[in-house]
Amino acid sequence: MDRILVVAVKELDGVCRSRIELAARRNEFRACFFDSVEEALPHLQEAEVVFGQSVTLARNAPRLRWLCTPSAGVEQFTVPGTFLSPDAVLTNSSGAYGVTIAEHVVMVTLEILRRQPEYDRITAQRLWHRSLPVRSIKGSRVLLLGTGDIGQETAKRFRAFEPASLVGYNRSGMNPGRLFDRIAGANSLAPEIKTADIIIISLPNTVDTFHLLDADRLSMLHDGALIVNVGRGSVIDENALVEELRNGRLFAALDVFEQEPLPPDSPLWTCPSLMITPHISGNMTLEYTKDRIVSLFLEDFDNYCSGRRLKRLVDLKKGY
Amino acid sequence: MDRILVVAVKELDGVCRSRIELAARRNEFRACFFDSVEEALPHLQEAEVVFGQSVTLARNAPRLRWLCTPSAGVEQFTVPGTFLSPDAVLTNSSGAYGVTIAEHVVMVTLEILRRQPEYDRITAQRLWHRSLPVRSIKGSRVLLLGTGDIGQETAKRFRAFEPASLVGYNRSGMNPGRLFDRIAGANSLAPEIKTADIIIISLPNTVDTFHLLDADRLSMLHDGALIVNVGRGSVIDENALVEELRNGRLFAALDVFEQEPLPPDSPLWTCPSLMITPHISGNMTLEYTKDRIVSLFLEDFDNYCSGRRLKRLVDLKKGY
Repeated sequence: MDRILVVAVKELDGVCRSRIELAARRNEFRACFFDSVEEALPHLQEAEVVFGQSVTLARNAPRLRWLCTPSAGVEQFTVPGTFLSPDAVLTNSSGAYGVTIAEHVVMVTLEILRRQPEYDRITAQRLWHRSLPVRSIKGSRVLLLGTGDIGQETAKRFRAFEPASLVGYNRSGMNPGRLFDRIAGANSLAPEIKTADIIIISLPNTVDTFHLLDADRLSMLHDGALIVNVGRGSVIDENALVEELRNGRLFAALDVFEQEPLPPDSPLWTCPSLMITPHISGNMTLEYTKDRIVSLFLEDFDNYCSGRRLKRLVDLKKGY
Repeated sequence: MDRILVVAVKELDGVCRSRIELAARRNEFRACFFDSVEEALPHLQEAEVVFGQSVTLARNAPRLRWLCTPSAGVEQFTVPGTFLSPDAVLTNSSGAYGVTIAEHVVMVTLEILRRQPEYDRITAQRLWHRSLPVRSIKGSRVLLLGTGDIGQETAKRFRAFEPASLVGYNRSGMNPGRLFDRIAGANSLAPEIKTADIIIISLPNTVDTFHLLDADRLSMLHDGALIVNVGRGSVIDENALVEELRNGRLFAALDVFEQEPLPPDSPLWTCPSLMITPHISGNMTLEYTKDRIVSLFLEDFDNYCSGRRLKRLVDLKKGY
């Protein structure tokens, strides 16, 4: 009997599905594709490998050995008891989203520095006002909280804009690809926050990153500093940020929030100097991203079938 | 008696003015600063050098030897009889605007590729729709019409986004700094237009660039192609572009227009897939740009006082 691979990622097009199907057949797997978790449910009994984002898949697959999520974030899987099968391991698709998220970060940074939301209101009235003072990435001090795939792709693009400095923050102290001017650790974070013009957050949701930017650290930022968050909403104390935005001290572009969807009565919706996007920076709407997700999955599928260690294994205790 | 330098650039702050004042004094010039052309008028009789944008300055300075405009564009000065003084030469500030215009180009390109105007409408209603298919600079074929300061600074930044190709178009065939994958000339423009995903225009207004993108060339573009114009409006046949935009075939971000300010009844205001900005990509609202304009002027002021050839001399017949 064939081994079963259940794929429940509705965004994948025919080309992506064919690539998976071919790899499955080569390894004596049968690939079954479903556009929803509900459709997939009856087929999970025999599933050995699952490619999908929903914890419902993990909860209902008794023979599961490996689940790969097409997302980078894995917080929903870290709840104890999520996996029905005691032998299951988890991998993520960290490395697929850096390109599209970095483009989002550059875009919203420039929109805020160049006052594009105000110019949008001016042109909506067919007016010809031209004299709002703008700012530039050139000469700005940029602090990137998180130096993984997203931080690295963002740093590569920001470098071309000639910032004064690109400082990374992580726990390892490593400077991947020497893309950053220097790496700050937990002990040297405060002085970096004090001098930063632009802070870019791509950190995951973990115990250590929870409210890393709390009221105290937000108050260290100089007037006019810009915060861009494309990591997880939990990294910022939203209530404290609301205060700072209402005081007119800071600017922010948030793509992620403590609660998603952002509730219609959230005070964030009416904050000045804030650009809100509905968690779109890294979703699966770019062809390149889908291709990359499939490539990363197939790389680890090959590892799995050959008995090698999976490359994107998630430590469920650490949460990334 | 002191030689007279009239400066009529109201955007210059105290630091900029001090730099000019010091350089003037060193060369036995007296620098006179005015916030408007009207204020400057009575002082033009004795002016040997003028730093200002208005043709009124040229028309009313009988002893003028050199006028430097803080703009890059010079079309208003090319009308015969503009200079009252027969000995006057003109320089421009080409080279000051590349950085700020390149940031504008990257911003509007990403906004259109990532459908930011639509997401703005979604968040204005506090909705949480996330699934609009987006596009990327990565893998795109980019054609830059104009390879001067603006084209070069744009190319440097686009390169970091990993486009499939960056092709420049100019008349000299030169590839400045080897920033472009190749340079197309007039004879090879058609095939480049046919394959381009993104066309960026930074050409000046000259006889040769007038309606370079006419109905015929616009029709060569493939469906979904994006045109960004930060050069001069006259390079595009606007009526032909309106047709293409209304047919839903193309996307565009225009910062310059055949008539400016863009008249309130222009059909462009209601065109779909078009982002309009009021000629802000390269104005003097960025500190860096002002600093650079002053530096370029002072470089040529030094040349002038030492009897050397001016570096940014404009050929009034060519128009740049």
